[in-house]
Amino acid sequence: MDAKTQNKTARAKTVPAKPVLAKPAAAKLGRPSKLQLDDLVLANKILFRFNIVDAFGHISVRDERDPKNRYLMSRHIPPGMVTAKDIVTFDMGSNPLTHVDIPQMSERYIHGEIYKLRPDVVSVVHCHARPLIPFGTAKGAKLKPLTHMCGFLGCGVPIYEIREAGGMTDMLVRTAPLGKALAEVLGDKSVVLMRGHGATMVGVSIQEAVYRAIFATENAAIQMQAHQLAVGGEVEFLSDEESTKSSKGRNVPRAWTLWKHQITAGR
Amino acid sequence: MDAKTQNKTARAKTVPAKPVLAKPAAAKLGRPSKLQLDDLVLANKILFRFNIVDAFGHISVRDERDPKNRYLMSRHIPPGMVTAKDIVTFDMGSNPLTHVDIPQMSERYIHGEIYKLRPDVVSVVHCHARPLIPFGTAKGAKLKPLTHMCGFLGCGVPIYEIREAGGMTDMLVRTAPLGKALAEVLGDKSVVLMRGHGATMVGVSIQEAVYRAIFATENAAIQMQAHQLAVGGEVEFLSDEESTKSSKGRNVPRAWTLWKHQITAGR
Amino acid sequence: MDAKTQNKTARAKTVPAKPVLAKPAAAKLGRPSKLQLDDLVLANKILFRFNIVDAFGHISVRDERDPKNRYLMSRHIPPGMVTAKDIVTFDMGSNPLTHVDIPQMSERYIHGEIYKLRPDVVSVVHCHARPLIPFGTAKGAKLKPLTHMCGFLGCGVPIYEIREAGGMTDMLVRTAPLGKALAEVLGDKSVVLMRGHGATMVGVSIQEAVYRAIFATENAAIQMQAHQLAVGGEVEFLSDEESTKSSKGRNVPRAWTLWKHQITAGR
Amino acid sequence: MDAKTQNKTARAKTVPAKPVLAKPAAAKLGRPSKLQLDDLVLANKILFRFNIVDAFGHISVRDERDPKNRYLMSRHIPPGMVTAKDIVTFDMGSNPLTHVDIPQMSERYIHGEIYKLRPDVVSVVHCHARPLIPFGTAKGAKLKPLTHMCGFLGCGVPIYEIREAGGMTDMLVRTAPLGKALAEVLGDKSVVLMRGHGATMVGVSIQEAVYRAIFATENAAIQMQAHQLAVGGEVEFLSDEESTKSSKGRNVPRAWTLWKHQITAGR
Repeated sequence: MDAKTQNKTARAKTVPAKPVLAKPAAAKLGRPSKLQLDDLVLANKILFRFNIVDAFGHISVRDERDPKNRYLMSRHIPPGMVTAKDIVTFDMGSNPLTHVDIPQMSERYIHGEIYKLRPDVVSVVHCHARPLIPFGTAKGAKLKPLTHMCGFLGCGVPIYEIREAGGMTDMLVRTAPLGKALAEVLGDKSVVLMRGHGATMVGVSIQEAVYRAIFATENAAIQMQAHQLAVGGEVEFLSDEESTKSSKGRNVPRAWTLWKHQITAGR
Repeated sequence: MDAKTQNKTARAKTVPAKPVLAKPAAAKLGRPSKLQLDDLVLANKILFRFNIVDAFGHISVRDERDPKNRYLMSRHIPPGMVTAKDIVTFDMGSNPLTHVDIPQMSERYIHGEIYKLRPDVVSVVHCHARPLIPFGTAKGAKLKPLTHMCGFLGCGVPIYEIREAGGMTDMLVRTAPLGKALAEVLGDKSVVLMRGHGATMVGVSIQEAVYRAIFATENAAIQMQAHQLAVGGEVEFLSDEESTKSSKGRNVPRAWTLWKHQITAGR
Repeated sequence: MDAKTQNKTARAKTVPAKPVLAKPAAAKLGRPSKLQLDDLVLANKILFRFNIVDAFGHISVRDERDPKNRYLMSRHIPPGMVTAKDIVTFDMGSNPLTHVDIPQMSERYIHGEIYKLRPDVVSVVHCHARPLIPFGTAKGAKLKPLTHMCGFLGCGVPIYEIREAGGMTDMLVRTAPLGKALAEVLGDKSVVLMRGHGATMVGVSIQEAVYRAIFATENAAIQMQAHQLAVGGEVEFLSDEESTKSSKGRNVPRAWTLWKHQITAGR
Repeated sequence: MDAKTQNKTARAKTVPAKPVLAKPAAAKLGRPSKLQLDDLVLANKILFRFNIVDAFGHISVRDERDPKNRYLMSRHIPPGMVTAKDIVTFDMGSNPLTHVDIPQMSERYIHGEIYKLRPDVVSVVHCHARPLIPFGTAKGAKLKPLTHMCGFLGCGVPIYEIREAGGMTDMLVRTAPLGKALAEVLGDKSVVLMRGHGATMVGVSIQEAVYRAIFATENAAIQMQAHQLAVGGEVEFLSDEESTKSSKGRNVPRAWTLWKHQITAGR
């Protein structure tokens, strides 16, 4: 391919595919509830606004109409550009039931496989948030809860090494087995770091998954500072009991109220 | 609770409670002065604008109508969303005298107990400002005044370890005894750090409390850099005399003028 | 020169030169394609928006009309101010074929000399992005791929020491020989760091060159954090195979779609 | 003073004094040239926009009408709020010749005393830019030029220790002798760091002084990163010859063009 052709190809690729309307078979599903669509679109915007996702990353939620067998997530576009029309319905095999003729997230197996192993999980975020990366790549580093906003980290934060599941890959969780391996490393925890890649966090609602994505990232940024300030000395983390106790309460809805306000007000 | 129910519950919780108008008994109090309400609302917005508070944190002020027995603070909402209608009047036991049927800040005891012990204090800020956290958690670290803007730190910055007052908790100062313990650790100082939580600072006015919150945070961010640059070597702080002398002057009103201008201009 | 004169001179210099229309000889070239002009102008705005360039730095692209012999780049103005009218056509000797009577980038030889040695390269970015500087100046530091977004760093990131090519200079690549030396240090790689100066990155399209500039900078910022967190310990980078495999795929067009959206929406 | 009174006093102080029109005697001076006023006001806005100054800091320029005997600087307000009406004319003793009945910058002696000792200097910036503080307080740290944008640092960056000139003070340069001592420590250099306070930089024009303030701050931020990346190892700075050579050229007007554009466009 010569330079001229390469240039044209690259440009052509950047034209985003248009959303394809649901096919007749998929149409039987009907539309997800407006409330759930609105929350999912808003979640995409919040994650983008707070630099949890950039052009990459995604959030899904179990489909209220059939939470055991289906989930909702956007088609293959940047989260900051997602609208209700871009929300695709997937089965738990991560096959699209709507929008079937257009590109989908290659890493959708992260979502489907976690929902299979974790009936308690209602929403999943996958991201490359910058402050989380060092904790998945610096040997010996451990992400731990520094404040009561992050008690959900107290149960431990495992690290997914894709080499163990798939050898030398392009680092993407682009098959069901790789997704299943990730779900197994996550286990019953809230967050799993992914070496050389990013992180995935789960919640009992869209709101909780978003909260955990934002505050895990906050915790990581502050924890790096704390270690540097301690210069080899100790940092005091929440105890297990403090983590458990501080994980309850009104934090999630209060934070969501603000974030929704900020997005709605265009800030 | 199954996934579907959990999801609905989470969403329901995010609908903010509507402010309830003052009850007949409370109505006798009348309204706080417009000037004081305006300053308190503005202070909330400034603290939010400068990342001192996020969805959490609060600022209070002694009620000008009865400063010995009452203080003003917003109801349980994010500071960036506070309006004059959300300002609640509390007694020094931190019982709401207005807005009695809606959720209040669980940590309002921080405010009431400090006012009881510190007659000189007119305003109190509680926050989770990011750069302050490491100084409360890295063992051996001490927040000290690096520049003349932060002379108020020169008298020392104590650290509140809630375990000493309450054992293993959810980290929140949600009772009068926990608030009193905090007030005692604060003593006659300007700022108290709270391990695994954040910080609380006081002032002779709303303006001074806000100034101290913003500049204590600035000092923390710069001090971390100074220690890293010194790499184990020494950092030169203000002497006690320099701290005392530089604490006087026109800094607070000048900074407030700018902050007010920025909020008013929507920047 | 006395103070008064100096002050006037300094001010006079700040009046930007007006773009001169193409001369008759150059006019024969006609205008570059609107599509290519639009992409190049947009690339300038994106690089500015993401702090890859400030008042300085530039991006060029081979001219689609004659990619072997010509390239396009803005005249001597800050990238954030570039419009289609400011795009100059250069020959591979970096002589302007249009806009010939006004100041040009003194470092245009970076572009011309790389195009001469690298027929596969279609676009070149030169920048002073802040996080890249330390990797070119801290002895022993090596910029390496931390995540799959930055597989293009896996082939190695050489450092250009201008002293070897030109002795003690003003650090600028302001001659063809200095540009050729830089192109030779770059070799077949994607990015070359320039000691005491910045970096230069190449791509098979404007989109890829911009992508590499933004993500090389991201990688540098995160890698510094990872080394600090590891405190002398090891950091796990992508293996060569992981780097190669993760360099393919849909990352570039997806990111470009977002960036274009952000600039168009004025964000 | 009881709490109630203190609160009122604090609020009263925040009402900014209104600019007083020039007195008859001062009126003889006439108005400074519109061009110079515009540049000085713009410089205030640029310094604020780039976080070189916050509510504090100031910039002055020799008065074109009588550069040996007078200089211009704003009255005592935050730089981000300065308009042409707020520009005061001072004599070299730092006495206001206009706006005589309102508060002036207590540190105006920094400006007057430097002009007295440095006939080549046309403009002076005093600031508390955050990244510069550590270099004035971490023992053994030295601010040195990392890139060709900062060649002006190559001649050395002295540190002013106010204790040597004034013993234990409030850290402010509020007298002519303290200002003279600062000017003497500055000597023939471009920038002087002030321990526990900030920095002062000079230039042959408003544009150059602003450029030096912004890029000295950039250099400091990057240099801290470089030292951390080197972890006790060496960092390669510009040589003396590289510093000298790179200090010439078109950098200042090009940067000013952008900054002016950004302020004018409200960005």
